[in-house]
Amino acid sequence: MNAAHPPYTLEQIVARLGGELIGPPHISVRQVAPLDQAGPEDLSFLTGGKYRRLLEGTRAAAVILGTADRDSTERPRIVSTNPYAYLARASALLNPAAPVEPGIHATAVVDPRASVAASASIGPCVTVGAGATIGERAVIGAGCAIGTDASIGADTRLHANVVVYPGCRVGARGILHSGVVIGGDGFGIAEEDGRWIKVPQVGRAILGDDVEIGANTTVDRGALGDTVIEDGVKMDNLIQIAHNVVVGAHTAIAACAGIAGSARIGRQCRIGGAAMIHGHIEICDHAIVGAGTMVRKSITEPGIYDGFFPSLPHREWMKNLAQFNRLHELGRTVQELKARLEALEGKAK
Amino acid sequence: MNAAHPPYTLEQIVARLGGELIGPPHISVRQVAPLDQAGPEDLSFLTGGKYRRLLEGTRAAAVILGTADRDSTERPRIVSTNPYAYLARASALLNPAAPVEPGIHATAVVDPRASVAASASIGPCVTVGAGATIGERAVIGAGCAIGTDASIGADTRLHANVVVYPGCRVGARGILHSGVVIGGDGFGIAEEDGRWIKVPQVGRAILGDDVEIGANTTVDRGALGDTVIEDGVKMDNLIQIAHNVVVGAHTAIAACAGIAGSARIGRQCRIGGAAMIHGHIEICDHAIVGAGTMVRKSITEPGIYDGFFPSLPHREWMKNLAQFNRLHELGRTVQELKARLEALEGKAK
Amino acid sequence: MNAAHPPYTLEQIVARLGGELIGPPHISVRQVAPLDQAGPEDLSFLTGGKYRRLLEGTRAAAVILGTADRDSTERPRIVSTNPYAYLARASALLNPAAPVEPGIHATAVVDPRASVAASASIGPCVTVGAGATIGERAVIGAGCAIGTDASIGADTRLHANVVVYPGCRVGARGILHSGVVIGGDGFGIAEEDGRWIKVPQVGRAILGDDVEIGANTTVDRGALGDTVIEDGVKMDNLIQIAHNVVVGAHTAIAACAGIAGSARIGRQCRIGGAAMIHGHIEICDHAIVGAGTMVRKSITEPGIYDGFFPSLPHREWMKNLAQFNRLHELGRTVQELKARLEALEGKAK
Repeated sequence: MNAAHPPYTLEQIVARLGGELIGPPHISVRQVAPLDQAGPEDLSFLTGGKYRRLLEGTRAAAVILGTADRDSTERPRIVSTNPYAYLARASALLNPAAPVEPGIHATAVVDPRASVAASASIGPCVTVGAGATIGERAVIGAGCAIGTDASIGADTRLHANVVVYPGCRVGARGILHSGVVIGGDGFGIAEEDGRWIKVPQVGRAILGDDVEIGANTTVDRGALGDTVIEDGVKMDNLIQIAHNVVVGAHTAIAACAGIAGSARIGRQCRIGGAAMIHGHIEICDHAIVGAGTMVRKSITEPGIYDGFFPSLPHREWMKNLAQFNRLHELGRTVQELKARLEALEGKAK
Repeated sequence: MNAAHPPYTLEQIVARLGGELIGPPHISVRQVAPLDQAGPEDLSFLTGGKYRRLLEGTRAAAVILGTADRDSTERPRIVSTNPYAYLARASALLNPAAPVEPGIHATAVVDPRASVAASASIGPCVTVGAGATIGERAVIGAGCAIGTDASIGADTRLHANVVVYPGCRVGARGILHSGVVIGGDGFGIAEEDGRWIKVPQVGRAILGDDVEIGANTTVDRGALGDTVIEDGVKMDNLIQIAHNVVVGAHTAIAACAGIAGSARIGRQCRIGGAAMIHGHIEICDHAIVGAGTMVRKSITEPGIYDGFFPSLPHREWMKNLAQFNRLHELGRTVQELKARLEALEGKAK
Repeated sequence: MNAAHPPYTLEQIVARLGGELIGPPHISVRQVAPLDQAGPEDLSFLTGGKYRRLLEGTRAAAVILGTADRDSTERPRIVSTNPYAYLARASALLNPAAPVEPGIHATAVVDPRASVAASASIGPCVTVGAGATIGERAVIGAGCAIGTDASIGADTRLHANVVVYPGCRVGARGILHSGVVIGGDGFGIAEEDGRWIKVPQVGRAILGDDVEIGANTTVDRGALGDTVIEDGVKMDNLIQIAHNVVVGAHTAIAACAGIAGSARIGRQCRIGGAAMIHGHIEICDHAIVGAGTMVRKSITEPGIYDGFFPSLPHREWMKNLAQFNRLHELGRTVQELKARLEALEGKAK
């Protein structure tokens, strides 16, 4: 952990972020840390009951906690209605992004017909195509390729080796991690005599504001219309978003998930890791899809949807699996037994 | 959607692509669009009955449709035996690839022992190793790395940041999307005293002609012999092809699928998204593997193979899952009930 | 296969790698090859009984085999207690890595505050940030980006287009394949009023010595503490390692697997392809997790754990699936039948 930034006093933190300070205002902290790892310059936190037992032994200078835990400790503390969100903001305060020098690196290749804000930073070996736009204070990491007529919004950061295909748009305050590919062709192929003909993918990929996308995730451009990632969507690593998908605002998607073509995901949904959403279906707002779950039909009611099998010791699994592979037969046997039992019951009367 | 290209009249389209034109020959179109989004300069299409209800209201200049739908509308139309393939070709006509200037960018690093066709285009910050060959009119996007002795066929396009390892071959008319890695080492390790020793991967990865590979997909080189992707194979994003796999000609593989070492996939197969194929098995020609399906044994008969569980509301799923985890026991209970019932039936006679 | 390297005699190989040579010592070999593909300059191998039938017909100059197979052939042979590990070492001898010229390529952008060993090789268009350290004989491929204060150990090789984020560490003798991303932000978000606030990821990703990571795999940095990949871990392609995961020494993980946040994987485990490990659980040393298996609870006993469903022909699958979706009901029906049967049995007495 990096503790090179200047410290903040608790008073300064509360002045910026709100919350109720209980304890000496001039205590200063440099970093955030879990209760059991915190040292005397760290601000720690309690976001759920599970870790309450660690409160007593912590060496943290102060602790962020929820209103219900207000009196769980005598330590200096900041009480917040949402301690995890408070932690996020306090950590951002203590860990400001490294300053970036504006300007275009000598090794970058920027087309003269591109428009790059003077406050933007274009890293080494970056390519910016004709007609592309790079917004104010945007940071384009080393080796990124920004296609013709693409646009990157203000205050957005692309880490090294991100690719944005021609015509695609990334909104403001976004973060794209390394290896992200925005706007590659969707998987559109037409069969003819046992061969595949490519269906040109003439739509775009459009990302709203405040979107974060994890490393090596891919968002395809639309086949005809656009693929749309709305404002505030957060995506983890190695996710596939196919052509013409719409992901509603403030939805979060965990790693290794895949969303097939033309699926529409609602707002404020949570899609678990390795979940797979079939194409051409709709998932309503506020739906929660469990990890490793495959969704094949539209979901029209908010709620939790699951479809995973947790592992078992090999022999147990194989026994259940063998039975599963006879499950249809088992169902028929039960029906037959039922009928025979009813016949016997008739006689017994 | 990009409508900057010159228009085509229906007559010009039919002259190039065939089909029967019904309606005025001089109507001109600039772009393809779905029935419900098409405007008066768009060519639309009807590829299945599902969208027939949209025909009446469309504002499209003309519609591509199948022979069975020949008289479903009074609108100007092109009748084809395969309207989706026709759409693909018409869209390619209306959306030609942006012209690329031949030549080697000043920032590219091309070994003097490499052979680059004069008509090829080598983008910024590309590396081409000694002994590598770049074919006629090939386009190598910014930041690609072409290893020593690798070869890229004529008219093939590598988008930005593709890597082709030493000795690997990509055929003609291929498309590799950004982040694709061809010829990384296969996962070959030998255990010795609780440690792993690397088995050198001395084979290559060989791609045929007309192969398209989606963003961030990986194709490993062979351990001893080669990994082979035959002609006309189409692969989506984030797919893993392990060492010594053979994918037969004109097979299509959807996103997030994985094919383990030495598996042989037949010709004209369709592998669904997130499907997983075990190693050292064979899948015959014309097999269809459903999305999210794991194939553990060879498939010897063409047909559809499935193995996915669609999601259920959380409580329903958990109830079925609990039962599944007792499935072996349930099977035994049913057998026992059957025996006891038979005993009773004997008495009741 | 590349046979341009100088040959070795069997005597030379045994002198370096041990094993018992049976046959003429001066026979020379240039490459390793499977029994059925080997030619008269190849060294072949028999690592399991399955291929013993190929021994007789092989054209190989000599064969590596285990002590039990010592007398299975008259051919020149090397007998080893671990023939697969022997093959790995013999292949490494016959296929030495191409020599790399030390030095910094003219197009690389190395911060003057970075420390690069004189024997290291920094390829074209590489970026090395301030405070970063590149060890002796390390090879950094074209287009890699090494962040500020990151370090790469001695004799480690990064293939083209790898990204190591600021502050992260890669040990000695490692291999990172193209597209690997080390140290991207973990997926840490806090909900507040239906929106997500980013939790800064202030930990690092730390890789031990002798770690190999396949193409396009991602290893996130820790949220507060570090993500740790211990010595000797081998990972395949397209794997996701989330923040604060610990992977124990000499564990092997196959392609497309995902390990969620704060999971701890033991030493010498084997994780199958596409396996998914939930967050905040522990897997003990020597556990084996099958392909396509989801682990949701901690594993405390070594052994094999499974959870995959192999595919079935579509109709069979759908019949079993239909029954599965009524499984809870089926279980209740069986209980009810049992009760009714017991009642009848009571009467029948």
